[in-house]
Amino acid sequence: MNMPSIPGYTLGSAQLAASPLSDANFELLKQTILLGSDDLLHLRLAAEVLDDQIEAVLDVWYGFVGSQPHLLHYFSGTDGQPNTEYLGAVRRRFGQWIRDTCAAHYDRAWLDYQYEVGLRHTRVKKNLTDAVHSGADVIHLRYLIAFIVPLTATMKPFLAKKGHDPETVEKMHQAWFKAVTLTATLWAQPFVPAQDF
Amino acid sequence: MNMPSIPGYTLGSAQLAASPLSDANFELLKQTILLGSDDLLHLRLAAEVLDDQIEAVLDVWYGFVGSQPHLLHYFSGTDGQPNTEYLGAVRRRFGQWIRDTCAAHYDRAWLDYQYEVGLRHTRVKKNLTDAVHSGADVIHLRYLIAFIVPLTATMKPFLAKKGHDPETVEKMHQAWFKAVTLTATLWAQPFVPAQDF
Repeated sequence: MNMPSIPGYTLGSAQLAASPLSDANFELLKQTILLGSDDLLHLRLAAEVLDDQIEAVLDVWYGFVGSQPHLLHYFSGTDGQPNTEYLGAVRRRFGQWIRDTCAAHYDRAWLDYQYEVGLRHTRVKKNLTDAVHSGADVIHLRYLIAFIVPLTATMKPFLAKKGHDPETVEKMHQAWFKAVTLTATLWAQPFVPAQDF
Repeated sequence: MNMPSIPGYTLGSAQLAASPLSDANFELLKQTILLGSDDLLHLRLAAEVLDDQIEAVLDVWYGFVGSQPHLLHYFSGTDGQPNTEYLGAVRRRFGQWIRDTCAAHYDRAWLDYQYEVGLRHTRVKKNLTDAVHSGADVIHLRYLIAFIVPLTATMKPFLAKKGHDPETVEKMHQAWFKAVTLTATLWAQPFVPAQDF
């Protein structure tokens, strides 16, 4: 696997723990979320469309987080001020996350990394990856799920920017919506006991 | 409050426990999910559009669940067979849920009921409301979150059925998407320790 050199980015690493979700249950989850081969095709197209727009997308998302103190809080240092290094380190992985979400085969390697990223939102691993000292020791689950909306809604104008017909843009957008929801679902896993997930 | 007489339906009941989410954090959550006054207007319009289509929507949703054994499982009796009375009781509340979601003021009464419904998906309260004996003692959190997609995607054709222009249909659909995501987020609350939600 071609792994970009981004600090803390470990998709495909042999050191990753396996997600506790079985292959069979992962397939059923994708089926429930209606993620099919046509979606993967439209995510590949979205990858092309977004390729030179990643920083612009991140500008929108970071503008959104930066304008809301209750969200910026999660990136604060122990002094309560936003930690710009931490924000920057996460931003690089977030940009790669867009590329990976569009390129994913939604296989075991991808699944295992989602478990790792989920853990990094919990008290077990938050702040460890970037070795930061933060006033926030967890990303609250409510925002992890709620973010499905801004991460989905804000994407459509970018998907529409390269002249595709409205139906194709809508298909790219629906595929993105499914992929984001699947991701948020999997990131929620380490927040709950195994038997409840 | 005008409470329909549906067994197990307790929105607005004085007996409901308060959601542990504070009013301030509830407001911030709605803000994060981008649910604004324009969305409430479009949900009211959706209520009119859907008024005579509720059973047709439920037919689609029940068809989806009924066609997938891993979902139907949650409605099974101890004999592993689907419990039709249980399915029917939930269906009446599910129909009312569509109406309530379109009509909601997203206030404390609505919030408290979401906590109750969330609990009914956990081991604490699943099967109690309808006094059923089921082989499934929890609705796994992964499906609760994943269902944001089918509950959102399947709604658009119904919203488009009454001749509104595409832009208005899209606004109704986006408002519905936000409302469904907010609901799923709140239903997840009793699955996790208070300090992690």
